Amino acid sequence: MKNNKTLRVAVFGSTTMGTALSHLIASAGHTCTLLTQDATVQESINTQHCHPTYFKGAPIHPAVRASMNIADEIPKADLVVMAVPSHAMRAAAQQLGALIHPAQSVLSSTKGFEPTNTKLMTHVLREECQTEHLGTISGPNMQAYMVKGLPTTLVIASDSAQMRQHGWQAFTSPTINVNTVADLASYEYLSGLKNIVGMEVGMVQGLGLGTNFQGLVAAEGMKELDQLLTKMGLDSKPLYGVAGIADIFLVCTSEFALNYQIAVQMGQGMTLEEALAPIKARGEMAEGVESLRVGLELANQYEQPMPLLEAAHALAFSTRPVSKEEFIEAAFKRNTAGH
Amino acid sequence: MKNNKTLRVAVFGSTTMGTALSHLIASAGHTCTLLTQDATVQESINTQHCHPTYFKGAPIHPAVRASMNIADEIPKADLVVMAVPSHAMRAAAQQLGALIHPAQSVLSSTKGFEPTNTKLMTHVLREECQTEHLGTISGPNMQAYMVKGLPTTLVIASDSAQMRQHGWQAFTSPTINVNTVADLASYEYLSGLKNIVGMEVGMVQGLGLGTNFQGLVAAEGMKELDQLLTKMGLDSKPLYGVAGIADIFLVCTSEFALNYQIAVQMGQGMTLEEALAPIKARGEMAEGVESLRVGLELANQYEQPMPLLEAAHALAFSTRPVSKEEFIEAAFKRNTAGH
Repeated sequence: MKNNKTLRVAVFGSTTMGTALSHLIASAGHTCTLLTQDATVQESINTQHCHPTYFKGAPIHPAVRASMNIADEIPKADLVVMAVPSHAMRAAAQQLGALIHPAQSVLSSTKGFEPTNTKLMTHVLREECQTEHLGTISGPNMQAYMVKGLPTTLVIASDSAQMRQHGWQAFTSPTINVNTVADLASYEYLSGLKNIVGMEVGMVQGLGLGTNFQGLVAAEGMKELDQLLTKMGLDSKPLYGVAGIADIFLVCTSEFALNYQIAVQMGQGMTLEEALAPIKARGEMAEGVESLRVGLELANQYEQPMPLLEAAHALAFSTRPVSKEEFIEAAFKRNTAGH
Repeated sequence: MKNNKTLRVAVFGSTTMGTALSHLIASAGHTCTLLTQDATVQESINTQHCHPTYFKGAPIHPAVRASMNIADEIPKADLVVMAVPSHAMRAAAQQLGALIHPAQSVLSSTKGFEPTNTKLMTHVLREECQTEHLGTISGPNMQAYMVKGLPTTLVIASDSAQMRQHGWQAFTSPTINVNTVADLASYEYLSGLKNIVGMEVGMVQGLGLGTNFQGLVAAEGMKELDQLLTKMGLDSKPLYGVAGIADIFLVCTSEFALNYQIAVQMGQGMTLEEALAPIKARGEMAEGVESLRVGLELANQYEQPMPLLEAAHALAFSTRPVSKEEFIEAAFKRNTAGH
């Protein structure tokens, strides 16, 4: 199928992700409205074609139109892209619920879980919105690179064929490749939990355990996550593809990876509050911390031992002192047989 | 089994790897002789307990004894560890062949292939030496970190139970974990070919395609390699463990990863000769280039399309101009169905 139908897309939230995805959607030739609650953002996007705070003034496609009129814009959209922080998804979904109709597609670009429980973003959307056409975006999609027009692959996961087709149409362009998959649960849990590995690798960097050991922790952390996903009845193969390894690699190497930065700082001895303070002050998020909380909760629920995650969780939340030796033994699968 | 038997180990070659492994073996309490052809190295190790050139004078365990007397030392060893560059393995194995007896274990720490063909290091050793107890070391084992006493896991692969036991004994310590595996062929081919992925990621970094795309290339490069290994009748699962991902991660992130550095430089426009010159001047090697050559030869032989490898090979050996777009299309598995 050719990507020749112009979609009407509403992006809900002028976050870094909402702004970057709006840029991609407009660049692919679709009608894109970026919904914001901030008059300064609206003004800046519509007249200066840049975000007033994010991306250091990098140009946003001039066809992106910003609006504060959610009630008017949502009903007109074929596809609604959610781009609010995970802690704000419930309120956003409730606001959306009154406006959305069953034929519309709703795509969550937000990763992670609702605070205080283990519900995924599409769980929240499903509880609040009338449509069955729900999906998620994953893959290596750090916003700063996408706004510059640099290439990547996005993975659109949905059990709705309409949602997969809308997602594929909305983003496909010469520099953006879209993979579509039907197994929403496996991809969305992976998307929410994969930051565990990046946090673990960052912590052992902060602890000064060396790059050999960081590589080892990447491999062993993935193995732990594989076992958890499998215990949960999910497909663990996506962990080794574009939605898994590619994104874990990105988190561990990008200068823009906030989760990794705070993990390094916690490994060096900072508390979670100290590490998060400058990020919160800029109005940004580091959702990887939540992945440690939910990951351990799921590991306990499914009775899956995850010693690296347990060490990382204890270090992040200061529940007890964690030594270098604990990380070493957690990453070593000692072969005591000696053959 | 406890690691309480003292082994007599001869390490053949005072390279960075030979020196680092000697340090580990002596640290684990074994009798270790480092065989060198360089009187300055012998003198420095035996009296200063450091290598005169490598590791900026970091201390080498004082129990490591350096010797130039190969004919006397080899026959006394339970275990011989080969640590010569891949291009020197044939001559070294021939020299060893006259001295080795069938009860001795020979472990290759050298990765890669014999120049001008696709023979692995244990293929060369098997042709020249009388023992069947041959094995390899893989895993994230950058020498500079090991010499500092930083932790890691080594993977000893051998179809000989004696070799696996000797390897496990020789290195196991509080900071060194040893995994032993019997499937030598799968691990040794992986060890020789995994640098392909690091080279590909480095090249696209050099081309300025952004970290999202580097993550994508890591995932897609691994998928290409998985398909090749599978076509060759090998087990591809090790690619996703300590001998695969962990090492690929290391190659892409360590300041000491020469293969990655030259790949970045080639992506930026340097020729292979220009990129290799300073490395050769220091007497060091970048074996990843050979992995591109052998990888493409195997891909052709097994009729496995590997578009990322083909682009990387063409860029490295300047067989034709390679554009950014070629790398982009090679990493994109375009879903033209649009569902």
